[in-house]
Amino acid sequence: MLELADVLAARERVAETARVTPLEYSNTYSTWSGANVHLKLENFQRTGSFKIRGATNKIAQLTDDEKESGVVTASAGNHAQGVALAASRAGVDATIVMPEYAPISKINATRSYGGDVVLHGVDYDAAAERAHEIERETGATYVHAFDDPAVMAGQGTIGLEIVEQCPDVDTVVVPIGGGGLISGIATAVKAKTDARVVGVQAEGASSVAESLRKGTVVERESVDTIADGIATRSVGELTFEVIRERVDEVVTVTDAEIANAVTALLERSKTLVEGAGAVPLAAVLQDRFEYEEGETIVPALCGGNIDLNVLTNVVRRGLVERGRFLRVRTVLKDRPGALQDLVDLLAENRTNIYAIEHDRASKDIAVNAAEVELDLETRGDEHVAELLDALESAGYEVDVLV
Amino acid sequence: MLELADVLAARERVAETARVTPLEYSNTYSTWSGANVHLKLENFQRTGSFKIRGATNKIAQLTDDEKESGVVTASAGNHAQGVALAASRAGVDATIVMPEYAPISKINATRSYGGDVVLHGVDYDAAAERAHEIERETGATYVHAFDDPAVMAGQGTIGLEIVEQCPDVDTVVVPIGGGGLISGIATAVKAKTDARVVGVQAEGASSVAESLRKGTVVERESVDTIADGIATRSVGELTFEVIRERVDEVVTVTDAEIANAVTALLERSKTLVEGAGAVPLAAVLQDRFEYEEGETIVPALCGGNIDLNVLTNVVRRGLVERGRFLRVRTVLKDRPGALQDLVDLLAENRTNIYAIEHDRASKDIAVNAAEVELDLETRGDEHVAELLDALESAGYEVDVLV
Repeated sequence: MLELADVLAARERVAETARVTPLEYSNTYSTWSGANVHLKLENFQRTGSFKIRGATNKIAQLTDDEKESGVVTASAGNHAQGVALAASRAGVDATIVMPEYAPISKINATRSYGGDVVLHGVDYDAAAERAHEIERETGATYVHAFDDPAVMAGQGTIGLEIVEQCPDVDTVVVPIGGGGLISGIATAVKAKTDARVVGVQAEGASSVAESLRKGTVVERESVDTIADGIATRSVGELTFEVIRERVDEVVTVTDAEIANAVTALLERSKTLVEGAGAVPLAAVLQDRFEYEEGETIVPALCGGNIDLNVLTNVVRRGLVERGRFLRVRTVLKDRPGALQDLVDLLAENRTNIYAIEHDRASKDIAVNAAEVELDLETRGDEHVAELLDALESAGYEVDVLV
Repeated sequence: MLELADVLAARERVAETARVTPLEYSNTYSTWSGANVHLKLENFQRTGSFKIRGATNKIAQLTDDEKESGVVTASAGNHAQGVALAASRAGVDATIVMPEYAPISKINATRSYGGDVVLHGVDYDAAAERAHEIERETGATYVHAFDDPAVMAGQGTIGLEIVEQCPDVDTVVVPIGGGGLISGIATAVKAKTDARVVGVQAEGASSVAESLRKGTVVERESVDTIADGIATRSVGELTFEVIRERVDEVVTVTDAEIANAVTALLERSKTLVEGAGAVPLAAVLQDRFEYEEGETIVPALCGGNIDLNVLTNVVRRGLVERGRFLRVRTVLKDRPGALQDLVDLLAENRTNIYAIEHDRASKDIAVNAAEVELDLETRGDEHVAELLDALESAGYEVDVLV
């Protein structure tokens, strides 16, 4: 099994390529939770996620002949960028197979880090198949995204940083996708301290709790979560072995809770964290595991690579969750002043209007009526309830759209 | 005039309440610009902007009697939050008059920092009038947002941090709204180093270049910019005096350039900066002033308080600017498979579809045709041009909506 010595050795190898990321006390989340919350800001890592640590450690251990033949991998996301930069820093060629519809931001980033990007197939599985073909054809070494001791050890260097930056840590909270990150971190943290390690999965991609119950890796039929960085059907065999031994508890959070945490991190901490990176904070804020007043908790915010077009939807969802945004549809009498009446009513209820869409041509409504769709800024759940009451009392039939 | 001694004295007074914010080298912007770019991340300041420095320095110098009577100010933004927290840390009551339609996020934040928020009037001027009434009625001290030596000196502490964190600095780039920030920073930087100080205004709120030409403060009729933190009609009398003496150059950037910089900071640096905070980086990236290869430039990113509903629009605009997002409207023949043909054509051109709106009921088009509106992910300006060509060659009439 992976041991502390592997992680310590990895640290030497990754020191030049990966940076030591900051750990910051958060007044906001400490107040909200009652715990003493320090954020490990791995979203500031080079390439925007922790993946460069594992990839660098893996590539550093290749023989000269292997280096000559290059590396290959498949990924639609952070691993692509991590392998690309790790390889180019080591002077090794890297071929990265990405699904054809991978976000353009990620394709561009992978290329900019020096990776030779091959677009192939409609999904990750098809891309991985092509990557393994390239492995066979060219003799390149396949760099697995998680189920490889060298990769796991590289990710574990985050655990060393956490215990050094925050010696009093009681609980480290870590996302689980394939399990590479948590197996590395747990190995370091458990060897160095008595701290607890809590794993967090997205509800729509959870498999570890069941795997632990059955004592064997369980694979889901499908995954469905906004946290694409941890949208895996199962953990690995090697990572499962470490999780079983060294992780104290595994919990899940919903997409709505993830969106809420991403939104809070932006609004309050001014920092961009992707869905997968926000799950540990979501678990803290939702009390998904027990902790004591004043307990020192470190959520590992593992990455910040969220496509900005996706981000706008996630933020919208986060605002809806907090009662800060409301989209409604209603029907006006088609007479002069009807829209003004509605606008006045909203103003009386201190509701700001972001957008109005006014459509007289919709087929679904009576000829002399007009439909309006409104994007509204609201002040929390209570305000939303009051506002909807006020609209209904005034005779509007209201559909809440989000 | 404001002198270094004032800023040094301010540092003692603000040390406990404001934090020393990080200065970080940026590989990305250094590569893009050819300069050596270090970002002063004042968006991580408490309350999300530099305003707490000046407010703290001001309040610290009140007499006991004045403290007893409290402070009052008007603001729709960062100054509200800065005064609220500075006052509550000093045990002083603060009344903050905000316009009735101030963003709810800012009202909530100001309250959470302990400010007594009074909502009054439709705009800043009306709120300021009410604040001055309260000043007269209660004897509270009015804390001006910029035109006060104590406030200017407090903001200048950022300049001290910059020259200490980056002793080789050649050029400091600073946003100008009312001029409090730049007058403080320029006073510190010019006294301590030979570095240049460049001021940046939003094009829709620029007044300093003309004021410098005329030798007197010029006031604009109106302002129009997405950078609400620097949307002022003029600088102050006291700040102008310092700007004239110590600022080397003043340039402007457009809203599109600001949106682009906000977007880059999010996507590449994983950090949330508001429009006003992004103007110095925008000026660097647009070569709005001359600099040499390898010159050490510090853009002061002065705040991160951007309403998230506004952010989604700014990011959208930033993506459009970079050819990464396109919204088009076109008309399909209303026959089976017409939509599929269009989708296939987009796929052939490697364009991802975010959203399709399909409307058969619009009054503007022929009865047997259907209008579609598409949100598309594109790969840059060239790709946008190619795609529009391909659509037109295939017989589609295309309206580009954003």
